[in-house]
Amino acid sequence: MISLRRSPEKVRLPKGFSFSAVAAGIKVSGRPDLALAEAVHGASAAALFTQNRVVAAPIVIGRQALVSTGGLVRAVIVNSGNANCATGHRGIQACEQVCREAGNLLGVPAAEIFPSSTGIIGVQLPTEKIRAALPELIAARSADERAALAFADAIMTTDTRRKIASARLRIGSKEVTLLGVAKGAGMIHPQLATMLVYLFTDLKASARELQPLLRAACDGSLNCTSIDGDTSTNDTVLLLASGASGVGLKDAGARKKFSSALTAVCQSLAEQIVSDGEGVQHVIRLFVEQARSRKEALLVARTIAHSMLVKTAWAGADPNWGRILAAVGRCGAAIDPSGVQIFIGSQKVCRNGMGCAFDERQAHRTLAQPVCDVRVLLGRGRVGVRFLTTDLTAEYVRINADYST
Amino acid sequence: MISLRRSPEKVRLPKGFSFSAVAAGIKVSGRPDLALAEAVHGASAAALFTQNRVVAAPIVIGRQALVSTGGLVRAVIVNSGNANCATGHRGIQACEQVCREAGNLLGVPAAEIFPSSTGIIGVQLPTEKIRAALPELIAARSADERAALAFADAIMTTDTRRKIASARLRIGSKEVTLLGVAKGAGMIHPQLATMLVYLFTDLKASARELQPLLRAACDGSLNCTSIDGDTSTNDTVLLLASGASGVGLKDAGARKKFSSALTAVCQSLAEQIVSDGEGVQHVIRLFVEQARSRKEALLVARTIAHSMLVKTAWAGADPNWGRILAAVGRCGAAIDPSGVQIFIGSQKVCRNGMGCAFDERQAHRTLAQPVCDVRVLLGRGRVGVRFLTTDLTAEYVRINADYST
Repeated sequence: MISLRRSPEKVRLPKGFSFSAVAAGIKVSGRPDLALAEAVHGASAAALFTQNRVVAAPIVIGRQALVSTGGLVRAVIVNSGNANCATGHRGIQACEQVCREAGNLLGVPAAEIFPSSTGIIGVQLPTEKIRAALPELIAARSADERAALAFADAIMTTDTRRKIASARLRIGSKEVTLLGVAKGAGMIHPQLATMLVYLFTDLKASARELQPLLRAACDGSLNCTSIDGDTSTNDTVLLLASGASGVGLKDAGARKKFSSALTAVCQSLAEQIVSDGEGVQHVIRLFVEQARSRKEALLVARTIAHSMLVKTAWAGADPNWGRILAAVGRCGAAIDPSGVQIFIGSQKVCRNGMGCAFDERQAHRTLAQPVCDVRVLLGRGRVGVRFLTTDLTAEYVRINADYST
Repeated sequence: MISLRRSPEKVRLPKGFSFSAVAAGIKVSGRPDLALAEAVHGASAAALFTQNRVVAAPIVIGRQALVSTGGLVRAVIVNSGNANCATGHRGIQACEQVCREAGNLLGVPAAEIFPSSTGIIGVQLPTEKIRAALPELIAARSADERAALAFADAIMTTDTRRKIASARLRIGSKEVTLLGVAKGAGMIHPQLATMLVYLFTDLKASARELQPLLRAACDGSLNCTSIDGDTSTNDTVLLLASGASGVGLKDAGARKKFSSALTAVCQSLAEQIVSDGEGVQHVIRLFVEQARSRKEALLVARTIAHSMLVKTAWAGADPNWGRILAAVGRCGAAIDPSGVQIFIGSQKVCRNGMGCAFDERQAHRTLAQPVCDVRVLLGRGRVGVRFLTTDLTAEYVRINADYST
């Protein structure tokens, strides 16, 4: 298992990709807000998108583009500072214009440019600023670590630190590298897709081969994550495979190896996103076990993870298990409280739905750590999920109550 | 429509009831924490209880008692400071003991004593303290306003003010009086029943006649209310009719008159509970309209009302309608965003799922009021709900993050 790391180790770069970022003036702060990732000879792509019915223009365009090209991507253009969501037909046109312009400059069809946006909802995209900055963005691209870090920095909004994870694996006599880059940090409750996450690999695989691997990797990692229960309108996970390693997925061993590296990188990004959630002081690794089904386990995990009373108790490192039990009781599943056990760290605090003697100071100390495990056993079956979530602090309120529009 | 009132007008007392309260030492603060309401000659009772699967001992006992007596109640005993929830068999026995003791002192069977508890979950009820205080509690009972106010004060936990509403109506040549008393102020998201609410009337009606009236009154008032989305384990609404007015419900006109007074009193209590919610700065009257069904309208209202991002924007009086639209998008109903209109006060801020020109300062000023209307039109049908909710402030976090167990 990958532990929660605040500063990831060395960044490993897959072959076949270059990166760049510039400040186009979309963010008021003047910080970098336009980023490029180019697959120099093109890449096969798999993607997952938000399940929110309100979807941003780049989700519409990006999804269409992947269908029309059969999963071929030459470059990803991401802007931060504006979500291009709830912007109607004009927002769609703005997104198309950016893709067309970038395609022209790179000499490829617009459909091979995959667009992403993140930031405020309901404000028209400042297309002129983006178009003006594109030549500089494209000229600056480079296949080194500094450029990859610049890409990771430019896609941030309220994130306080960049989110990167990478893996290198040996398959036969060759090496395959996988690099993941993500952003958080609010409106985080991915449902089947998530946030902005870009995964780059030099594996040689078709879009059709990549899609199920991406789905499986996300289900166990990014989809078991919530900061505030709000599913974003712009969530996107994109996996690009350049093929430059020459390594394919023909044999089962290679597929298994790559799949587990992909899951580990997604899990690391999920942990980085959650630990950098808005105002987060404590990350809770919530284990819901002995459920009848994965759906039931997730329902319980999400109800606990979204309870304001539970999250504020965690903010105070308060081992108030009664609030957790009350959340289980209202989740909608037919759970008998007398079968429920709750642990904080290694201590049992609730036995058969009732309080039991435990060292409260020890439980308080456990919850006061930056990362704490909470386990809820339902006594109904054999299915479990591991769900990453956070406390709810006054700082989260401060960040999100600022009069911004 | 009853407006949001912080200090209700004159309290009207129904005939046939007396009240009292004492400090039994359950609350650490030493404030009154044990309350009695007695129907001097007994009363017909209707009740609604929490839908949480984790239920407190008094819910189990109170429900059984109403069945065994056919809806006859002589007295209500409420303690604050301890919820007697997740306390297992011992908690049930403690509750039974309190009812038996109170029944002995009043000379009625234990089943005619209706018990309620509110406070911390998972701690055994201090039965000895309650039993020791019962004789004084019963001796102190009185049929005047001061005693009714003492009852209302003693059932409070984190409430900052008492919650009372009353109505007097003329039916034929006679008067019927209705008095409602409630407590909040956290773990408020009633589902079919709600919080602790006691309704006293001198109407002459059977338990069977009262139940549908209570259900209807609550559906449109207390059940359209949420502070934090957490449904309590102890929610109870109890309606007692002493019959002392001599007025019955035989004719349809009387039934309609009483029903609308009951709804108005419940609505006033709902508004008082919400405006005194933990840390609440702004009450939002959320109107979700043009839904296909009441279920759909409630789903949308609850998703908006429970979105931490929406609630924190309200705390900052931020007219960030994009977060409201995003909440509509993830609620689970098949809503087409291009049919959605959003109003803040009387201003339209989102037209057909897109931003439209509006006076942002005016919208900010509207949201900065203690009470603000937000309207969301779905463009799908003709059903609407009015849902009362609140902002989410740093003060709410402070109250609930205090290390309390």
